Amino acid sequence: MTVASYSPGILPYIPFFYVIWSDDLLSASEIQVVQTAIAADPSLVPEDKAQLLNWLDKANPPKNGEIKSWQQLISNSGVALVESETHPLEAFAMKVAQFYNGAEGHNPQLQTIERNLGIQPNHYNHLFHVEVVHQPFATTYDGKTLDALLNAKGWEVLLEFRKFLQQAPFTWSIQRDKTAFRQLVLDQLLVLAKSGWGAYAYPSANGGKEDLETYASIFEHLVFVDGSLAVKFGVQFGLFGGSIQNLGNPSQKEQYLTAAGNATLLGCFAMTETGHGSNVRGIKTTATYLHEERCLVIHTPGTNDNKEYIGNALHATMATVFAQLLVNGKNNGVHAILVPLRDANHEELDGITIEDNGYKLGLNGVDNGKIWFNQVKVPVANLLDHYGGIDEQGNYHSKIKNANKRFFTMLGTLVGGRICVAKGALAAAKMALTIAVKYGLQRRQFNDNIKIQEDLLMDYPSHQLRLIPKVASCYVYHFVLQRAMQEYAGNTSDDKRKIETQVAGLKAIISWFATEAIQESREACGGKGYLLENQIADLKNDSDIFTTFEGDNTVLLQLAAKGVLSDFNSEFNSGGFSSVLRFLGTQLSDRFTTINPAYVNKVDSAHLYNPKFHLHALDFRLRRLTYSAALRIKNYIKKGIPSYQAFLKTQTHILELGKAYSDVLAVKWYYEKLEHLPEDSYRSLLYQLGALHSLAMIRANATWFLEQGYLGGTKSKAIRQRVERLSTELRPHVNALVDGFGIPEQQLAAPIAN
Amino acid sequence: MTVASYSPGILPYIPFFYVIWSDDLLSASEIQVVQTAIAADPSLVPEDKAQLLNWLDKANPPKNGEIKSWQQLISNSGVALVESETHPLEAFAMKVAQFYNGAEGHNPQLQTIERNLGIQPNHYNHLFHVEVVHQPFATTYDGKTLDALLNAKGWEVLLEFRKFLQQAPFTWSIQRDKTAFRQLVLDQLLVLAKSGWGAYAYPSANGGKEDLETYASIFEHLVFVDGSLAVKFGVQFGLFGGSIQNLGNPSQKEQYLTAAGNATLLGCFAMTETGHGSNVRGIKTTATYLHEERCLVIHTPGTNDNKEYIGNALHATMATVFAQLLVNGKNNGVHAILVPLRDANHEELDGITIEDNGYKLGLNGVDNGKIWFNQVKVPVANLLDHYGGIDEQGNYHSKIKNANKRFFTMLGTLVGGRICVAKGALAAAKMALTIAVKYGLQRRQFNDNIKIQEDLLMDYPSHQLRLIPKVASCYVYHFVLQRAMQEYAGNTSDDKRKIETQVAGLKAIISWFATEAIQESREACGGKGYLLENQIADLKNDSDIFTTFEGDNTVLLQLAAKGVLSDFNSEFNSGGFSSVLRFLGTQLSDRFTTINPAYVNKVDSAHLYNPKFHLHALDFRLRRLTYSAALRIKNYIKKGIPSYQAFLKTQTHILELGKAYSDVLAVKWYYEKLEHLPEDSYRSLLYQLGALHSLAMIRANATWFLEQGYLGGTKSKAIRQRVERLSTELRPHVNALVDGFGIPEQQLAAPIAN
Repeated sequence: MTVASYSPGILPYIPFFYVIWSDDLLSASEIQVVQTAIAADPSLVPEDKAQLLNWLDKANPPKNGEIKSWQQLISNSGVALVESETHPLEAFAMKVAQFYNGAEGHNPQLQTIERNLGIQPNHYNHLFHVEVVHQPFATTYDGKTLDALLNAKGWEVLLEFRKFLQQAPFTWSIQRDKTAFRQLVLDQLLVLAKSGWGAYAYPSANGGKEDLETYASIFEHLVFVDGSLAVKFGVQFGLFGGSIQNLGNPSQKEQYLTAAGNATLLGCFAMTETGHGSNVRGIKTTATYLHEERCLVIHTPGTNDNKEYIGNALHATMATVFAQLLVNGKNNGVHAILVPLRDANHEELDGITIEDNGYKLGLNGVDNGKIWFNQVKVPVANLLDHYGGIDEQGNYHSKIKNANKRFFTMLGTLVGGRICVAKGALAAAKMALTIAVKYGLQRRQFNDNIKIQEDLLMDYPSHQLRLIPKVASCYVYHFVLQRAMQEYAGNTSDDKRKIETQVAGLKAIISWFATEAIQESREACGGKGYLLENQIADLKNDSDIFTTFEGDNTVLLQLAAKGVLSDFNSEFNSGGFSSVLRFLGTQLSDRFTTINPAYVNKVDSAHLYNPKFHLHALDFRLRRLTYSAALRIKNYIKKGIPSYQAFLKTQTHILELGKAYSDVLAVKWYYEKLEHLPEDSYRSLLYQLGALHSLAMIRANATWFLEQGYLGGTKSKAIRQRVERLSTELRPHVNALVDGFGIPEQQLAAPIAN
Repeated sequence: MTVASYSPGILPYIPFFYVIWSDDLLSASEIQVVQTAIAADPSLVPEDKAQLLNWLDKANPPKNGEIKSWQQLISNSGVALVESETHPLEAFAMKVAQFYNGAEGHNPQLQTIERNLGIQPNHYNHLFHVEVVHQPFATTYDGKTLDALLNAKGWEVLLEFRKFLQQAPFTWSIQRDKTAFRQLVLDQLLVLAKSGWGAYAYPSANGGKEDLETYASIFEHLVFVDGSLAVKFGVQFGLFGGSIQNLGNPSQKEQYLTAAGNATLLGCFAMTETGHGSNVRGIKTTATYLHEERCLVIHTPGTNDNKEYIGNALHATMATVFAQLLVNGKNNGVHAILVPLRDANHEELDGITIEDNGYKLGLNGVDNGKIWFNQVKVPVANLLDHYGGIDEQGNYHSKIKNANKRFFTMLGTLVGGRICVAKGALAAAKMALTIAVKYGLQRRQFNDNIKIQEDLLMDYPSHQLRLIPKVASCYVYHFVLQRAMQEYAGNTSDDKRKIETQVAGLKAIISWFATEAIQESREACGGKGYLLENQIADLKNDSDIFTTFEGDNTVLLQLAAKGVLSDFNSEFNSGGFSSVLRFLGTQLSDRFTTINPAYVNKVDSAHLYNPKFHLHALDFRLRRLTYSAALRIKNYIKKGIPSYQAFLKTQTHILELGKAYSDVLAVKWYYEKLEHLPEDSYRSLLYQLGALHSLAMIRANATWFLEQGYLGGTKSKAIRQRVERLSTELRPHVNALVDGFGIPEQQLAAPIAN
């Protein structure tokens, strides 16, 4: 076929059809975009339209010879593509047409196609001769606008805080020696405390603003500065101060909380024991009440019963100690007691032994230590007795009669800390991804021809697939954790079990996500990512423990699953399993929608991008796993298998259930957030990110969906392709997306990110 | 039903049927085991046999009420299970029967069932009252025997080497300061060199034993000592010495190789440049021949063209420098030249600038540095000219005419190093898993009742699933890398491209496996895993770069895939893609066996455990991915898409192909190894490990197998269950399995592993 055979109307469509048919990915709705544009194009005569529509027939696609001839036609024109054009492909196509027929101008319909199909320069990077230097990224979206969108709540305060962080003590540097590092972090902490940042969540009477949400954002920003600082900050103000705020009485708050907030009183949170990490109810430290002296005797009974891994242990002068409270020979369960650790000369008090935990994989700026108590007496007034105390007659009293419920209510007040851990993990992921993305937009490797500039790493599909879905997940999880903190801060009842369970699951999936994202970031930067100067290494090591502390992820997911199985309406988290059993019946009555066979293989992009599909799929998984887990457990019980054994036998199933619950919760909260945003291009972008995250999540569980017959093979493949394609479509915006994380410039010290 | 209804013959079968029916996992072949035993049991009258066989009918299983009555019967007997019995369940069952009918003795048929079904105490841990302290592990297999089996080749030498490592300089300690750490590692290196361990692979004329395989085992053992030492050792003896051994002429070997082997000459291997990591052919350093002076001028042209990340850079006095060799204005491609770096006072020579790379995530005992050359002249005799040299007339000559082939032949001599990297990664995984397993066999957390001892971590199914399949994979990969080294060492031809490609793929999957296994190990040890004293942290950080160095994994998998696509018979690895295209046709003629519908859902254990099934599945995946990748590329080409773009568009597909090739290669080599072992219980154990590894691998790709219709939903679920069950069955032997890794006691310094 010769050029002469194409009419002037058809000619500018040739490059478009070449790009379109070089991949066979056009879905029905996308074909419609092109059809509509063709129908509306006044430059086309009816024969042209018929010809073009004919080329859109997926059942009878253009022959290879024809496609090849298009390529020759384009190539013979000698026209080069200018990427800086607003519609580069349309502009290019018009110049190719001009070469053959001399006509000038622009074609709005082609611009529509280019825009609506999301055709990006990286779709045709190597197809055409490109004139200017490849643009590493587009400027369609503005990072600052995204930043303001993500951090709308407390935005002004955050801007102020970012400015505050420009001070010298917060400049990032490599630290190897733990003594010097701990001193540096302590100094930073004092600077923060002095300016009131530590007390942000406390009542105004104690120097605070009663703003837990902004406190969480401050915490997140401290991860950008240094993981050790964030953790030390969390221990002092969140855990130690928080225990006084949540478990103490008014006079205790007056006496200690203000001092904790301005860091004139340094404290630690002594819960974990060497022998008991996850199983807090099993801790062995005792607090025995002596009525004659109106005091509590704090004691470490056995060799493995010392407090372990206690942050701030070397700097603190006081500790909130968790111990079994024994009154008149009766154990009233775990309670918290303020125990002075050191005197004015910073010497350990009588009966107290503190040892350094030594070097760790990360967080070496935090002084973790072990603490032993040998018959240490403290006045009974030091018992944090908001939920349980000892009266003047020496009798125990509590407004919560049930011991299990009391225990979990006390622990429930620590949910805020768990949200912060998840936020911290996410912050580390954001920063590592930002560094990897910035590097991928500069670093070049390989090409087909040694004479042409090598390709940017970010232009490799495998590189896009490894980083961009994770950037999308950061957006999802950011809003999700914001919502979690809002729910928690807004919940004024003592019963925080539902939000506690939700946070448990979210903390698990988000901290695991962070570990994975940071690992990918390190590898994506190759050897450069391995150098400490490029910051990913510290982010990796510091955040690694986030999957373990404030609740081991495996334990947390089981907690979440138990919540689901008992429909959150029992004391499901009481430690034993039998309480869950009573509620299993409820779960067994759940009805299932029959999956329409057409739905099982529905691959249209409009369907695959639809939040309804994402929520339906993830929710189906949750309900089906709930049903089958409940059924399995019931069946074991019916055979006389003890309930604990029944839970053990279904443990891996239960873990999946905990994950499934958290996955769907995250996507649900994210889309609920988007519903309330103004309808603009940024919201569209956020929907695209949601689709990428959700499809990647469905893809990660595709084996299960296929086994259940929820997905057919065709749809499963289509989802994989969509994940790749969305990553490619978002590629030009990835710089704006990571700028949106709002990491202060001075904190992003990695040379490869600059 | 009352006790009276059971005959004396049936009574001892009750606990077995209770265990069996408490889970519904019995497959047809397992039912047959029980049927055969029943048929052969002389203690049973025909009515008993009929009753028992009736209870084996999966279509009509015993009612729940009946199973529950068994549980009551057992529980009412008050008999306790003694785990230390050879057949604990049979002995228990006989005692229960004795309680009801007074008869004593043993039943060999029940012993057969117990053995053949692999019923383990952890299957019924919480079902019965257990008398003695739970035994943390069985002694059926002996770790030492496994160790000798794994390390058969060079066993005596290894024993000697392990004894050698008991010397003080090899005691593990925490190192934070890079200067002190590097000095320590250098001292260790010199001790090793002095005793001849470094030169092990060199010719005897140069102080060696010409034994590359034992050299690789030595290298592996050094990872047990310290990652930095292993890498430093690899740089000095493997890379620097190896470059002289493989690329040098006889007089160069005489002059330098012996000195490299005894470390009187310290050298480095200067290949990577800041601007060119993976793309070695694109390096910019030049070696320009000056005929008048019979010298080569080594020069770093641009700011990003310095040598980067060069190990031993601060201690070395010489470097093997890779540079573009320019003779008479013509570039002959990359060649290696020995370049002196420092004088007798360890001062840098004229024109040479060396800078410390600074702190890294791990391996801080290795002195990595950057090197710049400013018009540095070296005699032409320093050109390592085995594959290409300059004659006295000043003309370039080579026995390999094709420049691509020459380049890859030179690089091919470095395959040994890549095997060592994979071995090193595997060694780190073995050690981390050993520590996690030993900890899991001591550490207890939670139970159903606070009065009973808490459960061992290793008794949780989720813990078994997280660690035991990875222990199995270590066995597989161990033999696979042994085979790779054997193939490489035995290949005397210059053309090592096939083994090079195989090693490329294996290095990628094994180093990624190691990263994952070590991460799991860290998390499985909770906070204890985070302390440096417990060694996992260093293993994690040191081995992290193994996915990047000696070839980035993503690049290596593409190399492997290109090998497959061109059937290894072309210069497929020549960098360009067009050479591969010529061979795509071959791949397209591949025939596929139609998958029998019955096969798609065949879930019998005999089938699922059969190596033939594993190989068939993994090979099907390889062939199908090869076919579809070739087809997609061909289709792009037919449409006139440039070949490079066609490869980019299929890049994620190609990476999967590279993985699929490596996965099947590993399993194939492993089973080939087992075929040659004596038929004993250890071989059976190794087959079990192979099945666990293979099924886990198939499971990891189950989405794909389901999409292709190779697996049905039922079979896919059955594979998941088998992976869990095999992990449980291997649980009692896990201590012996990790002991089999042969990590010297003194190197296993982690307190939690002791």
